Amino acid sequence: MMPVFAAINAGLSSLKFQIFEVSNLAEPRAVFRGVFEGLKESAQLIVKDRCGMVCAKLAWGADEGFDHEAALAHVASWVSEHQARYKLVAVGHRVVHGGHAFTGPVLVDDHVLKRMEELIPLAPLHQPHNLEPIRAIRRRLPHVPQVACFDTAFHHDLPQLSQLFALPKGMTQQGIRRYGFHGLSYEYIASVLGRHDRSLASARVIVAHLGNGASLCALKGGVSVATTMGFSALDGLPMATRCGALDPGVIFYMLREMKLDPHEVERILYSASGLLGVSGISGDMRTLRALAPTDADARQAIDLFIYRIVRETGSLIAALGGLDAFVFTGGIGENDAATRAEVLSALSWVGFNIHERSNWGGARRITRGRGPSAWVIPTDEELVIARQMSCVLDAERQRLAS
Amino acid sequence: MMPVFAAINAGLSSLKFQIFEVSNLAEPRAVFRGVFEGLKESAQLIVKDRCGMVCAKLAWGADEGFDHEAALAHVASWVSEHQARYKLVAVGHRVVHGGHAFTGPVLVDDHVLKRMEELIPLAPLHQPHNLEPIRAIRRRLPHVPQVACFDTAFHHDLPQLSQLFALPKGMTQQGIRRYGFHGLSYEYIASVLGRHDRSLASARVIVAHLGNGASLCALKGGVSVATTMGFSALDGLPMATRCGALDPGVIFYMLREMKLDPHEVERILYSASGLLGVSGISGDMRTLRALAPTDADARQAIDLFIYRIVRETGSLIAALGGLDAFVFTGGIGENDAATRAEVLSALSWVGFNIHERSNWGGARRITRGRGPSAWVIPTDEELVIARQMSCVLDAERQRLAS
Repeated sequence: MMPVFAAINAGLSSLKFQIFEVSNLAEPRAVFRGVFEGLKESAQLIVKDRCGMVCAKLAWGADEGFDHEAALAHVASWVSEHQARYKLVAVGHRVVHGGHAFTGPVLVDDHVLKRMEELIPLAPLHQPHNLEPIRAIRRRLPHVPQVACFDTAFHHDLPQLSQLFALPKGMTQQGIRRYGFHGLSYEYIASVLGRHDRSLASARVIVAHLGNGASLCALKGGVSVATTMGFSALDGLPMATRCGALDPGVIFYMLREMKLDPHEVERILYSASGLLGVSGISGDMRTLRALAPTDADARQAIDLFIYRIVRETGSLIAALGGLDAFVFTGGIGENDAATRAEVLSALSWVGFNIHERSNWGGARRITRGRGPSAWVIPTDEELVIARQMSCVLDAERQRLAS
Repeated sequence: MMPVFAAINAGLSSLKFQIFEVSNLAEPRAVFRGVFEGLKESAQLIVKDRCGMVCAKLAWGADEGFDHEAALAHVASWVSEHQARYKLVAVGHRVVHGGHAFTGPVLVDDHVLKRMEELIPLAPLHQPHNLEPIRAIRRRLPHVPQVACFDTAFHHDLPQLSQLFALPKGMTQQGIRRYGFHGLSYEYIASVLGRHDRSLASARVIVAHLGNGASLCALKGGVSVATTMGFSALDGLPMATRCGALDPGVIFYMLREMKLDPHEVERILYSASGLLGVSGISGDMRTLRALAPTDADARQAIDLFIYRIVRETGSLIAALGGLDAFVFTGGIGENDAATRAEVLSALSWVGFNIHERSNWGGARRITRGRGPSAWVIPTDEELVIARQMSCVLDAERQRLAS
């Protein structure tokens, strides 16, 4: 029987998982990877094997109410069906917020679960979705160890000025500071930069994680020195349905003049803003791209997304004191050549010399000549989860042995 | 009798005024300029004549409650005492928020006053202080025409992407957008750039208005293309007591988890944050500079101020597609050589080559050699008020004549 890890990455309406082979390997190796999308609506599942071949494709009707719990049950029963071949030794989870307490991955126990629950106010929409699978697996497989891997941890050592809001000292001490997110994705990119170009590992690099959520991270020698997301998952770039950076005065205006209550304001900023709010059509870049040639609202939403990426890139270049490379990743970053072309074109003053054929042809490097380089690197958050699981379980084994 | 304008610039705890000679002049010429400081506390007044000689210096004890109304009465009685020499033909005022309606200076009547009052929710702290002097002068001098000059007007033609928040379309249409402030100051700087270096008038220039309030403005050919302040006077750079840019999620956390009410949160962000909040000592850069060599909190507040200026400068360089010059103005920008040196040093990647002797010696141009230039240009918001008054009164005269 092959010992395997399961890495779970639960989002608002999606759940990604990968099964990794881990015996005697320097690096966990994916044997299956699956994605549930459209959970709670018309859900579908696609599973691919290690060669990228689709080995399962399922769909559920909107009336079946197929949700995160059902998705997880599906994964668990899949593992049991294959238990002749695979032995599940541990399950790892992406958890959005580690707050001040969790600066690295951690073995989950009652105490850890409780502390992660206490962080829900810092990520009210996302954290519950990350904790629910942990609880569900504890119920189903109480003896399987679980590891929590935090999106904030990679940014733990942000320089202090990059963490600080200009708030009263006491509030900063209470933990109101910039944490940063998408850390598993940035950790993956940082870990593979040197493979693509040896000089990049020590360079000044901006990584654009552009998906449903979106942020930028400035890396110096692979370490995060600044990032656009802050205390919550709301700051920085506009996203599918989130507003990104917003004048704080707007919130008081909504509360006082528009007589909205705080929950309604929060709902608008998390779920009715961003690409969806500006276009009035959709938060999905693919839909907007299809409409943009003839629809001014779709075009404006895309233009604002590009403009804000460009502005925040300038801000991060200032944090880095210059720029050597720019990396696109995440669903939009990996798949939308038009977004990449528009961003790099607006950043031509930085010296990017985009190579259109590479950009549209699926190449890794999409610039030529001198000046900073630009890259497309698919992220792999689940691999980072599996790596972190290995570390935590090794440390635990050593602890028990000593 | 010499016809004169009075230009009034009322801040939270200060009131500046200038008396301008206006007969047969291409440009209004200041004959007296005065500053009340510390209003409502230990107020003081300094008046200088056209040569910059101090011709009056007065102080009031904290127990006398000398406020904006008293300051204004003082100016009015000063004018009447000199009425043998000067004839007050009009009074002009800086008004922080012109909203959507006021895109240029306007003659004040009941209707205008009412509409300016309706804008108080957009600038709840500042707008009332700007309107009170207008009402007070209407009571005292009902036949003297008054002109309102708006801080937002200079930014009226901001490119649309620079105005937009990523909020639902309907909210943008209701006027929730980036207006920008310090417009009278930026208008002044834009108007004199060409005097300092002819090429600057058409160049890509960032102006840093650093005073009690602080913002940056990106000028292309003298026109505002981006600015750090937004819908309210709260966004962008940290200020003396204001927080500047803040993750919107922080506000929900303060409301829900810290159980603060919206007014208390607003008070904290406007009055207990910024340099004051971070240092826990003072919002006054002079005090912090004096303490910084031995006080880590004072040093941190200054460092954060510099860091945020540098980050926002990067963002504005991205909006401009490069940079030709940087201008310091406002109380801190004009007087604090250390702030200028620290900002330009952190921006050395842009190519600034600071000339220390010029910076510390009070020169206008403080860089040498190739690369973008940096300048110190004292602002003159009251002169812009007087210029706008001339335009409005000329137009009114023509309207009446036709």
